[in-house]
Amino acid sequence: MTGSLVIAGLGPGAEALVTPEVSEALARATDVVGYIPYVARAPDRPGLVKHASDNRVELDRSRHALELAAEGRAVVVVSSGDPGVFAMAAAVFEAVEAGPAAWRALDIRVLPGITAMLAAAARAGAPLGHDFCAINLSDNLKPWPLIERRLRLAAEADFAMAFYNPRSRSRPEGFARALEVLNEACGDARPVIFARAVSTPEEAIRVVPLPDCRPEMADMRTMVLVGSSATRIIARDGAPIVYTPRSAP
Amino acid sequence: MTGSLVIAGLGPGAEALVTPEVSEALARATDVVGYIPYVARAPDRPGLVKHASDNRVELDRSRHALELAAEGRAVVVVSSGDPGVFAMAAAVFEAVEAGPAAWRALDIRVLPGITAMLAAAARAGAPLGHDFCAINLSDNLKPWPLIERRLRLAAEADFAMAFYNPRSRSRPEGFARALEVLNEACGDARPVIFARAVSTPEEAIRVVPLPDCRPEMADMRTMVLVGSSATRIIARDGAPIVYTPRSAP
Repeated sequence: MTGSLVIAGLGPGAEALVTPEVSEALARATDVVGYIPYVARAPDRPGLVKHASDNRVELDRSRHALELAAEGRAVVVVSSGDPGVFAMAAAVFEAVEAGPAAWRALDIRVLPGITAMLAAAARAGAPLGHDFCAINLSDNLKPWPLIERRLRLAAEADFAMAFYNPRSRSRPEGFARALEVLNEACGDARPVIFARAVSTPEEAIRVVPLPDCRPEMADMRTMVLVGSSATRIIARDGAPIVYTPRSAP
Repeated sequence: MTGSLVIAGLGPGAEALVTPEVSEALARATDVVGYIPYVARAPDRPGLVKHASDNRVELDRSRHALELAAEGRAVVVVSSGDPGVFAMAAAVFEAVEAGPAAWRALDIRVLPGITAMLAAAARAGAPLGHDFCAINLSDNLKPWPLIERRLRLAAEADFAMAFYNPRSRSRPEGFARALEVLNEACGDARPVIFARAVSTPEEAIRVVPLPDCRPEMADMRTMVLVGSSATRIIARDGAPIVYTPRSAP
């Protein structure tokens, strides 16, 4: 009896963005483990056990999934977006490293998914078409001075930037400080994209020059993309196209 | 008669990593435009015209696709990985911006895909589980000093890094210089992942400490991922797990 653990990315929300590989893993699972709304997306069928848990219990959830796999179950941990980008994969491996030796012998696989920054970028054009970075703005798991330092260095490197978790309910002030740092470090009116709930019925995309950005333009469901100094806007009827050219001078 | 242009990401190679959204777009297309091996992946059917072109003609190909769409065709430009990450989307928008006004009125959509760095990261564990950057190491379209500057700033920011196009046939020396810069800037033995042809039958993954990396470990089909100073290795029978913890001190 050999269990397995698959950490699967469900993409940003739409079923049309779930890879066939992930759909197949869900169809073979005995157990699905994850945050309540993601577990709800796995199709119900006889024999499938769903283990839904609340947000912010990633390590407990990971240990539970590993225990089930060690018992011989075929477990899928569901994650939004791509599991390797500010999502469940790192949490599972933290639990593996700290856990019993038997967990290292398990068959563990990560199945990639469409991460939020790429879904958001696609809606706006190609703002990440040249070198870029991805930063988690939540200071739950790292000190604010480190975030600020990375923002300044990213601006100095002239990366386009993608921000995950720009504004949490518990720490709304962080994003306001990030905007201050960016205005100071960038010193221009480069476009910023606020992409809310991409690929869901609540999707809303907004393009705003950096100096005009306000903290309340982002909430917990928003990805924020900041152009580099080279990012361009193509005006047209309807939504503008935002893209970063492939070449740099 | 209104044409349309879809820029679609085929993912890293396996059909199981193509989103249903992209498969559906291909099923509705009248014309598929792209680099020869990607166009070959679109299923043949009566009425579908394939326009395959060689590498390094991205702007010509983009203009051709836009002309077809302007004639009323339903055109899909196929791209490997995600079209917005060092792929076809930026090229198409460069052509739109420089082209006739009518091209701006076209229905143009980007469909995201699984980009190579996320497929490679998934195979190794979760090396991009904390803040990271993506850099195109090809100096076809940007000067080498800019690449070197970004490498140094990325190391200073302690980002994990993903390198696209690490080593081209025409400029093999670039990656050797990148390794020199990284060894100097990082000064440690953090893990580097060489992920070749991920999700294809030729897939090969290798994890090497930074000081032991050699330029010939990468070729044109290799993604290179470099850990941050916090990236960890979980040793076990078989391939090790490489992951970057979610929290930073």
